[in-house]
Amino acid sequence: MTRPISLFTGQWADLPLEEVASLASGWGYDGLELACWGDHLDVSRWDDAEYVAGRQELMARHGLKIVAISNHLTGQAVCDDPIDRRHQEILSPAVWGDGDPEGVRQRAAEAIKDTARMAAKLGVETVVGFTGSSIWKVLAMFPPVPADMIEDGYADFANRWNPIMDVFDAEGVRFALEVHPSEIAYDYWSAKRVMEIMADRPNFGLNWDPSHMVWQDIDPVGFLWDFADRIYHVHAKDTKRRLNGRNGRLGSHLAWADPRRGWDFISTGHGDVPWEDAFRMLNAIGYSGPVSVEWEDAGMDRLVGAPEALAFVRKSMFDAPDAAFDAAFSSK
Amino acid sequence: MTRPISLFTGQWADLPLEEVASLASGWGYDGLELACWGDHLDVSRWDDAEYVAGRQELMARHGLKIVAISNHLTGQAVCDDPIDRRHQEILSPAVWGDGDPEGVRQRAAEAIKDTARMAAKLGVETVVGFTGSSIWKVLAMFPPVPADMIEDGYADFANRWNPIMDVFDAEGVRFALEVHPSEIAYDYWSAKRVMEIMADRPNFGLNWDPSHMVWQDIDPVGFLWDFADRIYHVHAKDTKRRLNGRNGRLGSHLAWADPRRGWDFISTGHGDVPWEDAFRMLNAIGYSGPVSVEWEDAGMDRLVGAPEALAFVRKSMFDAPDAAFDAAFSSK
Amino acid sequence: MTRPISLFTGQWADLPLEEVASLASGWGYDGLELACWGDHLDVSRWDDAEYVAGRQELMARHGLKIVAISNHLTGQAVCDDPIDRRHQEILSPAVWGDGDPEGVRQRAAEAIKDTARMAAKLGVETVVGFTGSSIWKVLAMFPPVPADMIEDGYADFANRWNPIMDVFDAEGVRFALEVHPSEIAYDYWSAKRVMEIMADRPNFGLNWDPSHMVWQDIDPVGFLWDFADRIYHVHAKDTKRRLNGRNGRLGSHLAWADPRRGWDFISTGHGDVPWEDAFRMLNAIGYSGPVSVEWEDAGMDRLVGAPEALAFVRKSMFDAPDAAFDAAFSSK
Amino acid sequence: MTRPISLFTGQWADLPLEEVASLASGWGYDGLELACWGDHLDVSRWDDAEYVAGRQELMARHGLKIVAISNHLTGQAVCDDPIDRRHQEILSPAVWGDGDPEGVRQRAAEAIKDTARMAAKLGVETVVGFTGSSIWKVLAMFPPVPADMIEDGYADFANRWNPIMDVFDAEGVRFALEVHPSEIAYDYWSAKRVMEIMADRPNFGLNWDPSHMVWQDIDPVGFLWDFADRIYHVHAKDTKRRLNGRNGRLGSHLAWADPRRGWDFISTGHGDVPWEDAFRMLNAIGYSGPVSVEWEDAGMDRLVGAPEALAFVRKSMFDAPDAAFDAAFSSK
Amino acid sequence: MTRPISLFTGQWADLPLEEVASLASGWGYDGLELACWGDHLDVSRWDDAEYVAGRQELMARHGLKIVAISNHLTGQAVCDDPIDRRHQEILSPAVWGDGDPEGVRQRAAEAIKDTARMAAKLGVETVVGFTGSSIWKVLAMFPPVPADMIEDGYADFANRWNPIMDVFDAEGVRFALEVHPSEIAYDYWSAKRVMEIMADRPNFGLNWDPSHMVWQDIDPVGFLWDFADRIYHVHAKDTKRRLNGRNGRLGSHLAWADPRRGWDFISTGHGDVPWEDAFRMLNAIGYSGPVSVEWEDAGMDRLVGAPEALAFVRKSMFDAPDAAFDAAFSSK
Amino acid sequence: MTRPISLFTGQWADLPLEEVASLASGWGYDGLELACWGDHLDVSRWDDAEYVAGRQELMARHGLKIVAISNHLTGQAVCDDPIDRRHQEILSPAVWGDGDPEGVRQRAAEAIKDTARMAAKLGVETVVGFTGSSIWKVLAMFPPVPADMIEDGYADFANRWNPIMDVFDAEGVRFALEVHPSEIAYDYWSAKRVMEIMADRPNFGLNWDPSHMVWQDIDPVGFLWDFADRIYHVHAKDTKRRLNGRNGRLGSHLAWADPRRGWDFISTGHGDVPWEDAFRMLNAIGYSGPVSVEWEDAGMDRLVGAPEALAFVRKSMFDAPDAAFDAAFSSK
Repeated sequence: MTRPISLFTGQWADLPLEEVASLASGWGYDGLELACWGDHLDVSRWDDAEYVAGRQELMARHGLKIVAISNHLTGQAVCDDPIDRRHQEILSPAVWGDGDPEGVRQRAAEAIKDTARMAAKLGVETVVGFTGSSIWKVLAMFPPVPADMIEDGYADFANRWNPIMDVFDAEGVRFALEVHPSEIAYDYWSAKRVMEIMADRPNFGLNWDPSHMVWQDIDPVGFLWDFADRIYHVHAKDTKRRLNGRNGRLGSHLAWADPRRGWDFISTGHGDVPWEDAFRMLNAIGYSGPVSVEWEDAGMDRLVGAPEALAFVRKSMFDAPDAAFDAAFSSK
Repeated sequence: MTRPISLFTGQWADLPLEEVASLASGWGYDGLELACWGDHLDVSRWDDAEYVAGRQELMARHGLKIVAISNHLTGQAVCDDPIDRRHQEILSPAVWGDGDPEGVRQRAAEAIKDTARMAAKLGVETVVGFTGSSIWKVLAMFPPVPADMIEDGYADFANRWNPIMDVFDAEGVRFALEVHPSEIAYDYWSAKRVMEIMADRPNFGLNWDPSHMVWQDIDPVGFLWDFADRIYHVHAKDTKRRLNGRNGRLGSHLAWADPRRGWDFISTGHGDVPWEDAFRMLNAIGYSGPVSVEWEDAGMDRLVGAPEALAFVRKSMFDAPDAAFDAAFSSK
Repeated sequence: MTRPISLFTGQWADLPLEEVASLASGWGYDGLELACWGDHLDVSRWDDAEYVAGRQELMARHGLKIVAISNHLTGQAVCDDPIDRRHQEILSPAVWGDGDPEGVRQRAAEAIKDTARMAAKLGVETVVGFTGSSIWKVLAMFPPVPADMIEDGYADFANRWNPIMDVFDAEGVRFALEVHPSEIAYDYWSAKRVMEIMADRPNFGLNWDPSHMVWQDIDPVGFLWDFADRIYHVHAKDTKRRLNGRNGRLGSHLAWADPRRGWDFISTGHGDVPWEDAFRMLNAIGYSGPVSVEWEDAGMDRLVGAPEALAFVRKSMFDAPDAAFDAAFSSK
Repeated sequence: MTRPISLFTGQWADLPLEEVASLASGWGYDGLELACWGDHLDVSRWDDAEYVAGRQELMARHGLKIVAISNHLTGQAVCDDPIDRRHQEILSPAVWGDGDPEGVRQRAAEAIKDTARMAAKLGVETVVGFTGSSIWKVLAMFPPVPADMIEDGYADFANRWNPIMDVFDAEGVRFALEVHPSEIAYDYWSAKRVMEIMADRPNFGLNWDPSHMVWQDIDPVGFLWDFADRIYHVHAKDTKRRLNGRNGRLGSHLAWADPRRGWDFISTGHGDVPWEDAFRMLNAIGYSGPVSVEWEDAGMDRLVGAPEALAFVRKSMFDAPDAAFDAAFSSK
Repeated sequence: MTRPISLFTGQWADLPLEEVASLASGWGYDGLELACWGDHLDVSRWDDAEYVAGRQELMARHGLKIVAISNHLTGQAVCDDPIDRRHQEILSPAVWGDGDPEGVRQRAAEAIKDTARMAAKLGVETVVGFTGSSIWKVLAMFPPVPADMIEDGYADFANRWNPIMDVFDAEGVRFALEVHPSEIAYDYWSAKRVMEIMADRPNFGLNWDPSHMVWQDIDPVGFLWDFADRIYHVHAKDTKRRLNGRNGRLGSHLAWADPRRGWDFISTGHGDVPWEDAFRMLNAIGYSGPVSVEWEDAGMDRLVGAPEALAFVRKSMFDAPDAAFDAAFSSK
Repeated sequence: MTRPISLFTGQWADLPLEEVASLASGWGYDGLELACWGDHLDVSRWDDAEYVAGRQELMARHGLKIVAISNHLTGQAVCDDPIDRRHQEILSPAVWGDGDPEGVRQRAAEAIKDTARMAAKLGVETVVGFTGSSIWKVLAMFPPVPADMIEDGYADFANRWNPIMDVFDAEGVRFALEVHPSEIAYDYWSAKRVMEIMADRPNFGLNWDPSHMVWQDIDPVGFLWDFADRIYHVHAKDTKRRLNGRNGRLGSHLAWADPRRGWDFISTGHGDVPWEDAFRMLNAIGYSGPVSVEWEDAGMDRLVGAPEALAFVRKSMFDAPDAAFDAAFSSK
C-alpha cells in the first residue's frame, strides 16, 4: 500500500503556490493538499476551465499530485458564532462582504459548495475542512447552558451542512471534517454525535488529525478503529504536552511557543502522538489515502521542519507483510 | 485557628433562604456564603436598612454567620461577550433589561458596585464572584487570534473592573475572583496576569476553588503558595477525572453526570482534589478565612451530599501543633 | 432506584444454606444469589414442587429474596477442554458420571437447562454462570494456533449454547455470562465477539464482574457503557494489583494470598476497582437489578469481610438526584 | 495472630513516662516501645534492681507491656562522623562528656551494651536503634569518593558493632537496626550489604520502618519478603510525597511541615505507605512481633494523632483465614 | 567484550538454510542460532558425520558462527498437556508418530537428547528451547486447582527433564530454557521455582528473552541481576504494550498484529523493552555470550526488519570503559 | 541565535590540554570550558602574561574558543565541612597545604579570586563552579538539626562568598554556581534561598545542569523560566533514573555504573532530561551563552560518547522562527 505523502499548504499561503510546489517537490513530497487561500487555489473560479487547467499544469510541472483541497478558513464561518474580526482576517473579501454575521455564514456556505465543484473539476476526491460551531463558545458550560441550546447547536450544523452536502453528492466529492477544538466535532463523543447525524451521508467523513486529541487525553489510535470506515483524510501533525502543575490544559491564552502553555503544536515526530501505532492501525483498517503533513511549530524554522517531517513519516510508515511469521514453525 | 465552615447557597437558590438556613444550621454548618439570587439576597436593596436588618435577623435566628456574599451570576455579565440567552436565564430582569449586550454589561457592573455596598452594610468582608471575559470564546486560538485581541481582552477587564474596585475601596470590602473557565482568569498563568494587572489594588484577590484546577492538571496546592497573600476566600468543591482514551478533557458538550464526560463535579471529598495537602497548605500560609462548601454533584442527592461534605471538611481540617515533634529528642 | 444487595453463596457452600441465610440476614443483606452446589440448590429437582417450595420457604423465613441462581461450576464443563480432575472436584457425581469428557459436557449442558427450569419454578429472572471454553488453553498462542482453531472454539460455544438458550427462551429466563478468564469471553474483545454471536438472543447477557478486568487493565466502567443493554447481573467483587517488577500479571501459579502474586482477589472495597464511578455508571445506564457481593479474599476471615463488604456497597451506591444543581441559578 | 500494638515513646520524652503511659493506656495501646531518653528509661541503671522493678511496676500499673526498648539517639553516635552539636543536643551528659568525637563514640558503644543488659533485666527481647555511619556524609559521591573509603565505612561499622553484638549474644537480646538515612543501612542495597556483613550474627536484625523507604521509591512491601527472617521489629510510621516539579526529594533543608518539602512525615495512615499490603505481607512472612506506632507529624497535634493512628492500625491489621475460599466449591 | 550478534532462524525456516545464511551474512550478522526445524538442522542425524560437516561448511562459507542451536518446537512437547493438532503442526513426523500424547512426549524427550548430542558434534555450547508444561493450562486457577496439582506439574517437569539433563551433562552441553508463557517457567517466580529445582544442575540455565516479560509487567533488567549466573543465552526480541481500557493483557485470542490486542511482538527496538539499560546490565553481570535477534513482527516485512534490528542492537550495545570518569578530577 | 557548543574538560584532565583540544576540535566542538586542574589551566599564574598568552595560542591553534573557565574542585573547599581526604585528592598541593580545614577553606577562597582574575586576563565572561556547603552533611535532618544551624550554613556561605564576589565585581567577571548536591544550593528551594541572599550581586548567577534535577524529581525546564535572568551557563549533562522498588533515590553508596543504583549519570541524550523542551525554553528566555557538554557516563567509552553527545546537542538545538505559522492564514 503506497500512500502519497503530501504537504498541506495552509501554513505556507504567504508564499506563492509556485514557490511552495518547488520547495515541496525538492524535498521529495509526493503531492500537496492545496489550501484555498493565498494564491494557492481560488474556488470561486471553479468554472474557469483555463484557471483549473493552469493549476493542474503547475502541479504537474513539479511532479506533484493534488491529494485533496482544503478550505478550513471558509468552512469555519459556516456555523460560527460570534463572527468577528478573527474571521475578517482569514476570509476572502468576497465572503466577508459587509461582515454582517448571517450574511458571512451564508456566503461561506456557498463558497464551500464551490469547493466541491472545484474538487470535481480538478478530479480530486476529497475536500478537507472545518465547519465552525455555534456552541463552541459555551464549552465551559457556564453560564448554565440549557440542554436545548446544545441540541440547537447540532441542529444548526445539520441545517447548514445538509444543503452543502447535497452539492457534494451531486459532484461525487467527499467532505472530511477535521475534528478540532472550535468545530462542531472536537473530541470523541462530539465526533460520535456528528457522525450519527450524518450517518446517512456517506460523503461526509473525517480528517483524522491526532494533534488535537493528545492534549485532550483522547486515544487517537483507538479513534481510528472506531471510525474506521469514515476516515477520509489524514493529517500528520503533532502536539507536545508540557504539564508541570502550573502549565494547564487550556493554554492560558498564551501565544504558540510560549513555554508556559500546557501544550503546543510541534514538528511532526517531536511530540506525543504515538505515530508508529497509528500507522500500524492505518494498515489494519485499510486506509489507503494520502498522509498529509500539516506542519505547525512556532519554535522551529519551517524550512528545517518540513523536510524533516517528511523523512520521519516515510520512515515510520511501512507496509504489513503478507505471511505470518509463525508460519515458519510449521513442519508441513 | 478555627475557620468557619459555611455552605454556599448558590446551588440552593430554588429554595427560600429561610429553608436553606434551617437545613444548614441543622447539619451543623457555621455560616452561609449568601448567593445574590433567588430570594437569598437582593443587593439592589443595600440602602434599605430594614431589609438588611431582616437578612441579619434571619441568619442570627439560625445561629449562622454570613461569611461572604457571592454574586457570580451578575459578575459574569460584566465582561462577557457574547451576551445571550444563557445570561438572560441567570440575571435579574432589572440587569437584563432589554438584553442589549452593552447595556447588560453596564447594568451588571452597577449591580456589582451595589454588592460591595450591601457587603459593607451587612458587615461582610468579602464579595465572591465572577468577572466574565471577552476573550474566553477565543480559547481555541482558532481562527487565529491576533495578539492584540488577547491584550484587548485584558484591557477590557481592567477598564470595566477598575471603576468597580473604586467602590469596593470606598466601602472597605474585598472582591475574591473565582479562578474558573469562562472568567478572565481561569488557570495559573491567566491568574498570574490578572494579579499583575491588579497588583496595586489590595482589595482585589482570589477565591481558591480547586475543582476547576484538577481537570486542567494545575496543582491547586502549589497555587495557594504562589498566591498566598491574595487568597481571600476558599471553596471546598471537588472534581473527578474520568479519562479513558474516549472521554476527553473538554467534556464533549455533555450534560453534568453523563458518564462520557472526561471530568465532572462531585461531592466534596469524592474527587481528585488533594484535600489534606490543601488544608495543611492553608495552615502554612496562615489563611484564617471561611471554608465554604460549594456542593455540585449531578449524580448524588444534595440532601445526602451537603451534610456528608461538612463532615468530610471538618475531619480533614485540623490545626498545626505548637511544638516540633523532635524537640522531644533533646537531652536538655 | 433501590437495587437489592445480595450475597453470592458460592464461596459459602461448605455451610448449609440455612446457616448462610441466617448469617446474611443477620448482617442485613437483602437477598442471596443461590449457588447450585453444596446443599444450596439442587437444580435436578426442578420439578419437585415440594423441594422448590421448601427453598422458597427457607429464604422467606430469613426475610431474603432469591435475586438470581448461579451455576458456574456446571456451566464450566459445557465447553471446557480438557476435562480433568479439577472438574471432578466441582461437579456433582451425576454430571461427572464416568468422567468421559464428552459425556460430562453433555450432562453439564442438560444440567444448565435444568437450571433454567428451576429458575422459572422459583420465579427468578436470571441464571448466572460460566460457559467453559475449548480455546482458553491456547491463550498463549504458542504452539502456533491455526486461525480456524479459534474459530472452531467460538463455533463450539455456539453449538453447545444455542440449544441451551432455546430452553431459557422457553422458560422466559435470562442467562448472564460472567466475563472471566477460562470462559469463552474473558475480556473486552472476546465479550464483543460472543455478543455478536448471540446478538439475536436477547436472553443471553452478561454478569458484570469488574474483578476480572482490573488486573487485565481493562476499564470496567467503560465496559458497562458499551454493553449497557445486556448487563443482566452485577458482582461486587474486587481485585488488588501488586506489580513490583517481580510479581507479574499471570500469577506464577501461586496460591491465592501469596504475596508474590501480581494480583489477588480482595474484600470488596479494598482493591483497585473504581467502585464509585461504577455505581454512578450503573445509574447512568439504568441498571436496576441486584448487586451481588461475591466475596473472595484469601487473606481475610469471611465472617469479618462479608458484613464489611455489605456496608461498603451500601454506602457507595446512592441514587442520582431528580433536578440538576444548576437549575438553582435560574432567575426564572 | 495477635500482635501487640505499641506506642514508641521517643517523640514523647518531654513528658514523664508516667504521663505517657497514662495517655497510651487510655487510648487503648497494648504496650510501649520505651525510649532510653527523657526520664523514660536510664540504661545506665541496668544493674539497679530497684529501678528496673520500678519501671516494670509503672508499666504494669497501666496495663502495658514493654514490647521493646529503643536507643536510637545513643546508637547514632557509635559510628557517626562528624560528631557535633546536633549530637550534644541528643546525648546524655555522661555519653557526651567532653565532646571529643572518638571518646563520644566509645562511650556511646558502651551505653548500647548497657541497653542490651537492661533489656535482659526487663525481660525484653529486642533493642531497637540506630548505628550512625562514618560514610553517610559522602552520600553525594562528590568530591569523588575513593572506593576504599566506602569499604572503610562498612569496616568501621563492623569493628564498632561486633563487640557490641557480643554483649547482645551474651545477654540473649536482639538488636533491630532501623533502616534510615544517616545510618549505615538506609536503603535496600545498603541493608543488603549490612546483612551480609552480619550474616553470622542471628541477633542482628532489622526494624522495618516504611516511612524512610517510600520517599526513596523503595518498595517497602517487597523489602519484607526479601529480609523476612531478620525482621525483628516494625514501626508504623508514614510519609507523604509532595513532588510538583519544584519540591524535590532532598527536602531543601526546610523544616518539617514546610509545604515546600518534597516529602514529609505524616500521621500513620495519611501518607503513601501501602499499609494493607504491608500487613498482609507481615501475615505471609509470619511476623508475630509488635507493631509500634512511631508518630511524627509536624502538621498535626499529637494528642489528636496518636489515638487516631492506633485506630487505623487496629482496623488495617487482620488475621488471615484458616481455609481457602474456593474449598467451598468442592462437590466432595 | 565483543558478543556475537546472531539471527535466530526459527521464524525463517520456510526458507532453506542456504538462503537464510546468505541473507544474514549479507546484512552483517556474526552468526546464526540454528532452528532444528525446516531444513535448518536435523538433530536426528547427530551421528552422521558427513551431515554435521556439511552444516559446518555451509555456515563457514557464509562467514557465520553457529552461536547456539534451538529446539523450541520439540521441547514444547516434552511436558505439554494436552498434546493436540497444534503440536502435530510443529513436530517432525517422526516425533509426532501416531500422535498418542505420552508417546509424543517420550519421543520429544529423546529428540532433545539428540539435540545435545548434535550440539556436541557441532562444537556448540548451548541448546536453547522450551520445556512445555503440564500445568500451563490451569493458569486461570479456575476450576480451583488443588495445590498438589501445581506440585505435580513441577515434579512432572523434573522427572522428564532430569534424564535429559543427564545426557547434556555427558555431552558437556548447556540447556537454556526460554522463560515464556506456556512453559514450566514463564515469569519471575516460576523461574525462581524452576531454578531451585535445578539448582544442582549447572548445565541448566536460562535464555533471557525480555519480550515475554514486559507485557506481564516484570522488570526484565532486574531479572538479569537476580539470575545473573544462569543466563546462558539472550534473545533480542521486543514487545509493545497497547492498553487503552478496551485492549487487555490477555490478547483476546486475536491474531498477531490485530490492533485490538493489548500487546504484540514488534521489531526489536520498536517496543517497550528498555534495551540500553538491559545491555548495560549485561555488561555489569559479565555476560559474554551471543545476543540473538529473534525477529517477530506481524506488522512489518521481515526483510526490512531483520537488518534494521541488527543495526539497532549494534548501536545499543557498547562496552563499558576501563577508567572511571572522576579519576580525571584527581590532583595526583 | 548561534550558541557555541563546548566540551567541559573537567573529566578529561588526565590528558594534556593539547590532546583534549585536538580531540574536541576534531569532533567539531566550537570551544572548551576549561577546567582549572590537570594541566588545563593554572589560575595561580593569572599575572603571568606569557602563560596566559600560551593558553590562548593553544586554543586558537585548534580553532577553539574558551567559553568559560571552571573551578569546581577548588570552589568545593570554600564552605565544605568536613574537609577530608576526598578534598586532598582533588585540590592542588598549594591549596591543600597542611590540610588544616580552615586554612584549606581560606586558600581555596583566594584561589577562586585568582580564577576571576584569570578569567579577566583571558577575556572570559564566566567562571563556573561549586561553593561547598557547611550544612550538606545535615541533609538527613537527623540527628535533629536546630533551625539556627541551617541559618548558620547560609550565613557562612554569604560570609565566605561576598568577599570573593567583590573581586569578581572588580574584574567584571560573573560566577555561575552549579546547582548540585553537596553545594549550598542543590535543588529548587535552596537555589531560591541562595539567590535571595545574592539578589544584589548581579555577577552571581547559576550554571543550569539538569542532570542533578531529574533524579530529585525537580522540573529542570520550569527552573529555567523561574531563574531566567540569572542563567549564566548551561551544562548539557544527562541522568537516567532506574527505580524498580529495590534501587532507590539515594544511590546506596554504590559506584557509578553499578546497575543497582537508582539513578546514574549517562551520556547526553540517553537519559531522562527533556532536552528538546529545555532547548526551546532556552530560546524562550533568550539565553545566548554557551552550551557545554559535561560528559559523564561510567558505562560508556568517552571517546565514543563525546562526539555522539555533540551530534545530539547540535541536532536538538535549533532556532525559533521569525514569523508565526498562522500568519499564513491571513487573507490580507
